[in-house]
Amino acid sequence: MHSAVIILICTGAVFFVRGEPVSEGDGVHPRSPRVKRAPGDTERDCTATPQYIPSTAKDTTDLLRRLREGMQSSGHFAGSIQAYIIPAGDAHLSEYISERDQRRAFISGMSGSAGTAVVTNDGSGGGKAAVWTDSRYFLQAEQQLDCNWILMRQGEEDVPTIEEWLVSELGTGGRVGVDPQLVSIKLWEALEEALTDARIRLFGVPHNLVDDVWDDRPGPSQAPVFPLGLEYTGKSWEDKISDVREKMTDENADALVLTKLDEVAWLFNLRGSDVPFNPVFFAYAIVTADTAVLYLDTNKVTDDVTSHLRLGCATGASCVQVAAYDTLLTAVEALAADSTMRKIWISSASTTYAVFSKVPESKQILDASPVMKMKSKKNSVEQQGLKNAHIRDAVAKCEYLMWLEDAVPGGSVTEISGADYLQQLRSRQRDYMGLSFPSISASGPNGAVVHYRPSAETNRAVTTSDVYLIDSGGQYKDGTTDVTRTLHFGQPTDYQRETYTLVLMGAINEFLQVFKQGTFGIRLQQAARAPLFSYGLEFGHGLGHGLGSFLNVHEDPYFRSTEGVPVGEEGTFITIEPGYYEDGQFGIRLETLAMVKEADTKYHYNGRTYLTFEPVTLVPFQEKMIKFDMLNEKQLTWLNDYHRQVRETIGPELQRQGKDDVYDWLMKNTQPFETSRITSSGAQPVASVFFIVIAVVCSIFST
Amino acid sequence: MHSAVIILICTGAVFFVRGEPVSEGDGVHPRSPRVKRAPGDTERDCTATPQYIPSTAKDTTDLLRRLREGMQSSGHFAGSIQAYIIPAGDAHLSEYISERDQRRAFISGMSGSAGTAVVTNDGSGGGKAAVWTDSRYFLQAEQQLDCNWILMRQGEEDVPTIEEWLVSELGTGGRVGVDPQLVSIKLWEALEEALTDARIRLFGVPHNLVDDVWDDRPGPSQAPVFPLGLEYTGKSWEDKISDVREKMTDENADALVLTKLDEVAWLFNLRGSDVPFNPVFFAYAIVTADTAVLYLDTNKVTDDVTSHLRLGCATGASCVQVAAYDTLLTAVEALAADSTMRKIWISSASTTYAVFSKVPESKQILDASPVMKMKSKKNSVEQQGLKNAHIRDAVAKCEYLMWLEDAVPGGSVTEISGADYLQQLRSRQRDYMGLSFPSISASGPNGAVVHYRPSAETNRAVTTSDVYLIDSGGQYKDGTTDVTRTLHFGQPTDYQRETYTLVLMGAINEFLQVFKQGTFGIRLQQAARAPLFSYGLEFGHGLGHGLGSFLNVHEDPYFRSTEGVPVGEEGTFITIEPGYYEDGQFGIRLETLAMVKEADTKYHYNGRTYLTFEPVTLVPFQEKMIKFDMLNEKQLTWLNDYHRQVRETIGPELQRQGKDDVYDWLMKNTQPFETSRITSSGAQPVASVFFIVIAVVCSIFST
Repeated sequence: MHSAVIILICTGAVFFVRGEPVSEGDGVHPRSPRVKRAPGDTERDCTATPQYIPSTAKDTTDLLRRLREGMQSSGHFAGSIQAYIIPAGDAHLSEYISERDQRRAFISGMSGSAGTAVVTNDGSGGGKAAVWTDSRYFLQAEQQLDCNWILMRQGEEDVPTIEEWLVSELGTGGRVGVDPQLVSIKLWEALEEALTDARIRLFGVPHNLVDDVWDDRPGPSQAPVFPLGLEYTGKSWEDKISDVREKMTDENADALVLTKLDEVAWLFNLRGSDVPFNPVFFAYAIVTADTAVLYLDTNKVTDDVTSHLRLGCATGASCVQVAAYDTLLTAVEALAADSTMRKIWISSASTTYAVFSKVPESKQILDASPVMKMKSKKNSVEQQGLKNAHIRDAVAKCEYLMWLEDAVPGGSVTEISGADYLQQLRSRQRDYMGLSFPSISASGPNGAVVHYRPSAETNRAVTTSDVYLIDSGGQYKDGTTDVTRTLHFGQPTDYQRETYTLVLMGAINEFLQVFKQGTFGIRLQQAARAPLFSYGLEFGHGLGHGLGSFLNVHEDPYFRSTEGVPVGEEGTFITIEPGYYEDGQFGIRLETLAMVKEADTKYHYNGRTYLTFEPVTLVPFQEKMIKFDMLNEKQLTWLNDYHRQVRETIGPELQRQGKDDVYDWLMKNTQPFETSRITSSGAQPVASVFFIVIAVVCSIFST
Repeated sequence: MHSAVIILICTGAVFFVRGEPVSEGDGVHPRSPRVKRAPGDTERDCTATPQYIPSTAKDTTDLLRRLREGMQSSGHFAGSIQAYIIPAGDAHLSEYISERDQRRAFISGMSGSAGTAVVTNDGSGGGKAAVWTDSRYFLQAEQQLDCNWILMRQGEEDVPTIEEWLVSELGTGGRVGVDPQLVSIKLWEALEEALTDARIRLFGVPHNLVDDVWDDRPGPSQAPVFPLGLEYTGKSWEDKISDVREKMTDENADALVLTKLDEVAWLFNLRGSDVPFNPVFFAYAIVTADTAVLYLDTNKVTDDVTSHLRLGCATGASCVQVAAYDTLLTAVEALAADSTMRKIWISSASTTYAVFSKVPESKQILDASPVMKMKSKKNSVEQQGLKNAHIRDAVAKCEYLMWLEDAVPGGSVTEISGADYLQQLRSRQRDYMGLSFPSISASGPNGAVVHYRPSAETNRAVTTSDVYLIDSGGQYKDGTTDVTRTLHFGQPTDYQRETYTLVLMGAINEFLQVFKQGTFGIRLQQAARAPLFSYGLEFGHGLGHGLGSFLNVHEDPYFRSTEGVPVGEEGTFITIEPGYYEDGQFGIRLETLAMVKEADTKYHYNGRTYLTFEPVTLVPFQEKMIKFDMLNEKQLTWLNDYHRQVRETIGPELQRQGKDDVYDWLMKNTQPFETSRITSSGAQPVASVFFIVIAVVCSIFST
């Protein structure tokens, strides 16, 4: 009996004295050398004789000839232009672009999401063509571009910027054209300033020259626009417009022009699917004190929409009119010409130069759109909706993790098949409307590619010897989800566990923060990065982003922000997603959505309340990846509380859905971590004293 | 024997199970009601009949009459002006102002450091006069202003801004004058924009109208300018100018105009004492690729200065010329007219509108001065100098704290007598050159006034029943110091100890941070504020500021900065000074200077090094104010390490100076806090388990 007690003590104590916070054996793993693919394989070789162009590349010779003809003799402006810039974006500066707007991909063949093309025209049908893109798309570009194109590898040494290249190609006095509907105010001004020094003029070409040569350009989206009811939005469009008008009064604005698709969708409680992943439709809006006009494809104004917006309502503050999508610029011109419209509010960050240039400077209010801030602070219906969506999303995610534990050792799972299966599981959940972004399903070294998206060429098996990272989310009628977990289905190395634990500690530190009303994200970053920094490690991406209520997966606020929308506002949702990436080896990211809520503090300075983060994503962290001896007591308590919340919230939903096997899996994977398993660094010296005293007691009684 | 062992264990354990992190009994103390002073006492009463004007007020009737005559008929501009703005600053936008430049104090009588006067002129010798100041000076203003003046209480409701008041007084179409040498570019532009809307024109009056009526204005300072040797500066002025020219080349600047007094002093390794507290002299400088001109009172060019600057040197890059102080504006005009000078760099933040307006926009480079950044990163000689100055400064400070422990119970110490004695102690240290700012010596409720400076009216006794805050610093030839400690010489309340400990935890958290090269202060604030926030408490001032090498006590970087000079640069010095202020009760601030140095990390991501803070101020924290059970193990370890460093660094210096009594005091006050005295919150549950097990063992053996 006695010895049993003593053994219990000594066993417990072992965990204290062991407690080296980090194991010395591991170093940062060396990078794997970059394998240069042989030309003549899948990549073009423009230096070979004859040039080698793979079948995946697009033949752009004829297209470029026709584009240059347009540049030479366009009737849209006086004289020819020597260079034409083709951005990747649309007229709303959207993150996800419809097929119809993928002009840069069409003209060059390079289909990656990021990149800008520039085509020059020497006046005799010739010239150069170049595409700027970042390292994510270097390989893809070499496979998709023919030899008409120069690939400008952004981020590599001696690669010129677009402006530098234009100056070197055109000399002084040339003319550069761009579609002003496709560039932000900021980009236009930066281009103009850089070119002005070389006396090159920047022209806004009112007609898109790529569209002129795009014979089989897809037509406008036929996807329906549909109302989202009060049970999801929590506030009528009438009330939202009334709030917007209050803000306009505060800013002395007579009119407000909204150009962001998610802002228009939010304001009118309408949704659509004109672009991938974001449930929005092509539209603009103009609000004044007594009018609200929605500009959209009028074919989409169904009976439902008509009734939702009460179209045909007599004029007045609670009426809305619809107008054709392509009449927006004319309407802005009319506003600008209207002498009763003294000040017109345009969003500084998200408006195109085309809209901006229609409003004379004296009439401009250039500021963040009021809708940007309003929609980031979710009302109680939206809050509950987002929480509910995350409960159902967690059911699918837990089902997936349980399935992986079985399937991965069998060797049949790949990045793509895994992501597909997860999508299938999500789609069985109520109110599922699609993915909220392309799933990042990444095994081993692919996990270190931060914006990885598996393709046929890169698809790897998910194995028992690799770290697996799954970052994915769904659109549900009651909310948008975005969650990342990182797992190992075999035996992780000590270094993988150490870095996973540092990332987890960062996430927990972030959740433990208490902060002031109105705090901008920039002040709240360090806590999540601190554990990695203290080990001499870091990650190079933002800590997190806001997310919509069945809207865009990325919206304000951001943790990087120093102004605009603060994180410190009750009802704000933001992802907390620290990571660590070991190039060529593995990637770790733990992304958990948080809601900003009032903190429970002992005091209230000057009657104030303070804020903290509440977890909304409820998916367990993998126990085998955690080195518990690195966590302090506060962190461990948070982790146990979190897993308890997962059990208590997701468990009943699993039972309700009859998923008993997943329920059992969840119970097994959310057990509290026992204190005897951990070493708080705070406890060590004290514990050592105890251990010695116990040893003395033991030795005394054993003599 | 056995029972002794068991008692030892149980005694130890008491400290674990006790461990409530905060005591529930204390609430935030209620504010003391504001005592309204009776009029007819020391404050003016302009509503009484007859008006009551105390003897401390200045009679400004004649002065204002003469000033308005100047405004009406000045030959310096066409026509009269209807309002004249009198700022508090000098032509270098300095923090501390010479007597000669205290124009606002002269014209109004109100001598507080902050405040702007505006005088209007109705064209017939009459008009209004108003002073804007903040709450620090409300009482003083009522004592010093006569009834010609309106006191504009900034921060109170319904108090108009200067612009608003001007618009309401002048209507539209008026003309407002200001001395362009006394306003920053930013202030001028803000004024101009606000007034333009009301069609009021802002005029830069080239001659100062207050000086015209200031018959007994003090003459220019006769204080000498003296060279500071390489043993203090670590770098010759020739090398500094060469570094500046490199930065100019990087920015394509043909000339650089320096207007900040500390920047000029730093660049030429010269010091003076033309303004209080800052060891600088009135000067400007212009640097081009092959010239460097120092503009100063040529009477101050002594043989020492001549030899130091090698005046008379043939023209060339390592020569410097001197020119008369008041030829600067003409020189800038000449630069602007010189066609070889394509770009002229002027510091955006610290240049007056007078200088700025001489350079046409096309020639301007408006950016932070390169000297600002250079001087913030101290070289090894400056680093050692600052450390040495802080050792001697700590000797004086420890002597003072020891003396207070004896003298305060005797009842003879006041805020002023204490600060005077500390100054006396400092002055006995080698290379002492004066105070670096007016000492904040604050007892009880005065400690809650953040920028408090004791005066005859406010002087309180330092007693055994009050918290005492002493924030002071010295100028030494090898460095500038600035340190704050807060103490209690009787029995502090639990709430005072709790808040002191939260402030101390914040300071320690800040010192424990590890961060990236180039990090701006804004990211590093939260760690120091977090302990207070988590209790629902906060402080409303910045976390800290850079400080010069025998230069200004306030310089870049600041913790509030989002751009400009980063904190994340090895060799940067910055104060870490969290606080807590209980209005009407007490104030706590703990200010410790830190040097940014390389952190010792286990890994080095991509070969990078990371940074952390090393304490430079070495003055103990008062044990009786610390609630050790609130500190975690890391914080306690830091505190013990800090006190060990204080003993090991200040101890030998005390011995060297033969101050054996202070040495003994220091040894007593820097003993390591024993682990048995503390409860780490991390240790509690584990300790509880142990305690129970021990109890079981005890009970087994006792049966």
